[in-house]
Amino acid sequence: MVSSKTTIRIRYADTDQMKYVYNGKYLEFFEVGRTELIRDLGMSYKSFEEAGYMLPLYDAYVKYHSPAFYDEVIEIESTLNQKPMARLRIDYTIRVGDRVIATGYTQHAFISAETGKPTRSPEIFNKLIDKYFKE
Amino acid sequence: MVSSKTTIRIRYADTDQMKYVYNGKYLEFFEVGRTELIRDLGMSYKSFEEAGYMLPLYDAYVKYHSPAFYDEVIEIESTLNQKPMARLRIDYTIRVGDRVIATGYTQHAFISAETGKPTRSPEIFNKLIDKYFKE
Amino acid sequence: MVSSKTTIRIRYADTDQMKYVYNGKYLEFFEVGRTELIRDLGMSYKSFEEAGYMLPLYDAYVKYHSPAFYDEVIEIESTLNQKPMARLRIDYTIRVGDRVIATGYTQHAFISAETGKPTRSPEIFNKLIDKYFKE
Amino acid sequence: MVSSKTTIRIRYADTDQMKYVYNGKYLEFFEVGRTELIRDLGMSYKSFEEAGYMLPLYDAYVKYHSPAFYDEVIEIESTLNQKPMARLRIDYTIRVGDRVIATGYTQHAFISAETGKPTRSPEIFNKLIDKYFKE
Repeated sequence: MVSSKTTIRIRYADTDQMKYVYNGKYLEFFEVGRTELIRDLGMSYKSFEEAGYMLPLYDAYVKYHSPAFYDEVIEIESTLNQKPMARLRIDYTIRVGDRVIATGYTQHAFISAETGKPTRSPEIFNKLIDKYFKE
Repeated sequence: MVSSKTTIRIRYADTDQMKYVYNGKYLEFFEVGRTELIRDLGMSYKSFEEAGYMLPLYDAYVKYHSPAFYDEVIEIESTLNQKPMARLRIDYTIRVGDRVIATGYTQHAFISAETGKPTRSPEIFNKLIDKYFKE
Repeated sequence: MVSSKTTIRIRYADTDQMKYVYNGKYLEFFEVGRTELIRDLGMSYKSFEEAGYMLPLYDAYVKYHSPAFYDEVIEIESTLNQKPMARLRIDYTIRVGDRVIATGYTQHAFISAETGKPTRSPEIFNKLIDKYFKE
Repeated sequence: MVSSKTTIRIRYADTDQMKYVYNGKYLEFFEVGRTELIRDLGMSYKSFEEAGYMLPLYDAYVKYHSPAFYDEVIEIESTLNQKPMARLRIDYTIRVGDRVIATGYTQHAFISAETGKPTRSPEIFNKLIDKYFKE
């Protein structure tokens, strides 16, 4: 298991007329979370793409526990719970202080940019995470 | 069961550098779908709010089957498969022609704006859908 | 002079906690307006890109006359007032019924995708608009 | 004159299929800039709203100098060049390192939330900025 935390301050642009953060924004917050998780592992997602891979979403789930509001600072915890095989799953918990705002996950396919086809988790990625999943 | 279809043309703003529609946009498309479903039932979501109710999301799920691209016209089919009790669930299928782009659902709590508390599906809403769920 | 009108219904996602449409959204509405203007001229912006050109923004101006609200249908009028030379300028007026919501303009450079350099308005585009600017 | 700097990392969500940051996003970056400028002055925009005022946009201008790309860290410099009277004007410069990405401004009306009418710059705001505009 390996996880990472990052924070974002809620913008006016993120809110809707209910005064809540708009529901679709959470997938953007998940993106920020996993980008920082991958960076913490030692590689930017950008360099992952430059190495010829993409990680488009297979699916995504968000559970809304409690609204987040304008100007609050949310903390996104992103966790890789298991070594990816054909698919990469990342779990997220978003909090404001002790208040859980949202939980969820995204699953991603590894796609070779050259062939446009799914591949297994590439060596370049495995090398980064192997140490976290040793028996 | 009752369902509704509406279409949206993909904007440049919806795309990302993979040339795909950005994953978080689908929750916005689901919003457009259910808004039109509720309108087709005979009430705008706006008048539902004016009657003192809100429908914040409980959770949301999106499965990405095939990317959508700039300038394509997506068709969003939104379906109410069962009579809501404490929670309203709407299912979605997004297509471009015959190609399935995404499927998913959102679940919503009925919240009284006055008390801020969850309520059962209000009469104003039940009246609209009763005819579709007669045994 | 040539102009085009198109409509958009305001989404919950477009609103902010002031209950107004968020100010940044107007540039997205302008995009929809000019896309439909170009389509009305006889070419999709997509095919313009496929022909090897891009129209990135040089600058943009928005004046906010009156707020727009959730579920309102805005009408975007996009106008090409003069034949473009090095730069393409499009003017916009957004209305809800008779109420003027916003006015503004965007100016665009013609960029060759091959060289990444600015070019004059290409033949493929001139052909579409010449009839509107005959002396 | 008083100014403030803050940084934002470009998200995948911010990009479009040209691989550039989408033009409408800059108004969101300007929002982040002025929020931090006001916070640096000693008050959150949130508490400004809680004191009964709003700052809706009167107009906005963006000039796009050079594209910004995914994962780049942009620096937003927001400047209040003159003491506001009926209207507040803030100027912005966005840079990536030494590269100027965009410049622009927003002008805002001071609106009383109670009356919905424009007011002069309120005392609560004047107190924060007086020291920067002493002759």
